[in-house]
Amino acid sequence: MSNQPQKIAYLGLGIMGSAMTLNFRKAGFDVVGWNRTLARPGVEAVKEQGISVVDSVESAVSQADVVFSCLGDVPDVEQVLLGDVKKFARKNTIVVDMTTVGKAAAIHLNDGLKEAGIRFLDAPVTGGDVGAKQGTLTILVGGEKATFDQVLPMFEAIGKNIVYCGPAGSGQAMKLCNQVLCAINMIAVSETFSLADQMQIDKKLLLESLGSGAGASWALSNLGTRVANGDFKPGFTLEHMLKDLRLIDENVSDCNLPGVELARQLFEQAGHLGGELGFRQGTQAMFKAYSSANQAV
Amino acid sequence: MSNQPQKIAYLGLGIMGSAMTLNFRKAGFDVVGWNRTLARPGVEAVKEQGISVVDSVESAVSQADVVFSCLGDVPDVEQVLLGDVKKFARKNTIVVDMTTVGKAAAIHLNDGLKEAGIRFLDAPVTGGDVGAKQGTLTILVGGEKATFDQVLPMFEAIGKNIVYCGPAGSGQAMKLCNQVLCAINMIAVSETFSLADQMQIDKKLLLESLGSGAGASWALSNLGTRVANGDFKPGFTLEHMLKDLRLIDENVSDCNLPGVELARQLFEQAGHLGGELGFRQGTQAMFKAYSSANQAV
Repeated sequence: MSNQPQKIAYLGLGIMGSAMTLNFRKAGFDVVGWNRTLARPGVEAVKEQGISVVDSVESAVSQADVVFSCLGDVPDVEQVLLGDVKKFARKNTIVVDMTTVGKAAAIHLNDGLKEAGIRFLDAPVTGGDVGAKQGTLTILVGGEKATFDQVLPMFEAIGKNIVYCGPAGSGQAMKLCNQVLCAINMIAVSETFSLADQMQIDKKLLLESLGSGAGASWALSNLGTRVANGDFKPGFTLEHMLKDLRLIDENVSDCNLPGVELARQLFEQAGHLGGELGFRQGTQAMFKAYSSANQAV
Repeated sequence: MSNQPQKIAYLGLGIMGSAMTLNFRKAGFDVVGWNRTLARPGVEAVKEQGISVVDSVESAVSQADVVFSCLGDVPDVEQVLLGDVKKFARKNTIVVDMTTVGKAAAIHLNDGLKEAGIRFLDAPVTGGDVGAKQGTLTILVGGEKATFDQVLPMFEAIGKNIVYCGPAGSGQAMKLCNQVLCAINMIAVSETFSLADQMQIDKKLLLESLGSGAGASWALSNLGTRVANGDFKPGFTLEHMLKDLRLIDENVSDCNLPGVELARQLFEQAGHLGGELGFRQGTQAMFKAYSSANQAV
């Protein structure tokens, strides 16, 4: 382990980033955090464990072997990584971006950082806030295989299923594939529940009956259970899902994706039907687009 | 067990019916079979185990305590059950139909048989030929609860997850819900693979990466694996799936089901793209509708 990089900077201490930062510390890594806004629960949680949170990207990255980032949308990531990180990180630093930004943006980041002698991995995750807290994330990694191998002990501190997907952008490509599955499996759950309502079939009995058969899915067992309980709080918000579906469009404009298009329409409708929470409801709120349409019939 | 019915007649010795008949015999029940056409592999398989196969419905049902049926489509079931079974079964016989016929047809059968003092359960299954052979089917049962309780030891000989769903037709209603899940989860798999092809992501790596996360489904792990291997043989054929989707339409004509409608279109396209096998391909052939559309772009 003596040749392995040990000093980590984590940029972006939201729900996901703060949980991963805590797991790095638990695994014995020397980690420092940074967040644009310091008055945030994730920042507090990290500081409570004695992890130092600095107020500039420069302070965070200038001594780091590996810089992780989990930020909001593509412009945030490009501004931070191709701005201060590119400027202040040492040559040969490894930058690992875990934000979902799409394949094209990951390649752009890779090329931009290479100019400064910085190595890059795209490493978006799935498994949600629970996976981040428990250290059981699936991590989908694109970039140079040798760089991946160097970072692997760090990935093992925060994830369980760690997959090397191929050259720069491949982790992002795989993540977009995952979002297609999640979006369309949610149509299956919503539409089945809608049919069940029409036929006077109880949703909880349905979950019990069909949750382990040929219709089984993670979405049915997890998000279907939330719908059956009338729970539309996020897990993963409608606005984040819609962002990811937009990234699919931007990355493969010629691909025939009618299921994604239908999912987008239903998620949009659900957002407008969500009252105060609106687009900050969980993706399972898609069911509302169905129940509303059937009431109108 | 002495008050439990013991003598079974099984009508319809196709892939499913013959496998269940063999499991009844294994569990010690006295079972006799009938099939419209005797020169069939299922009939042979049953006879090889010393089970008698008779050449008329009358001979099969006149001494039976419980009559099971697994026939083709709605007209076959109505002809046999409301014809010779109604005529020749003794009063108080229990008839258990396992064919997928929809909720309305099950209620019609229930009412028709009641006139002759025959008790009825609708009990469609999921779990495919493998589940039928291994005795691990999910059995979705509608009808009188007392009748269900009497038949339960027989269900336990052929299935694993045995669910009482409610009054007559409820088992069929639940089965239609299951088919909605299966149909739309197949869109998710096909569309994800289509996107993966466009982004040069290997299908087997995708299965490995995403098969246990938030995008997981039975369809991905089982039918996705077949697609990745170029295997379009059935499991469950396109023509059977299209029949079941038609039954949904007939049973709830006012329900808003855009995902089912999309699935229907894609299954139809796949059937026409299937060469010799055509609509006898497995449902995973839906992927061909995508790969063909993308080649045309």
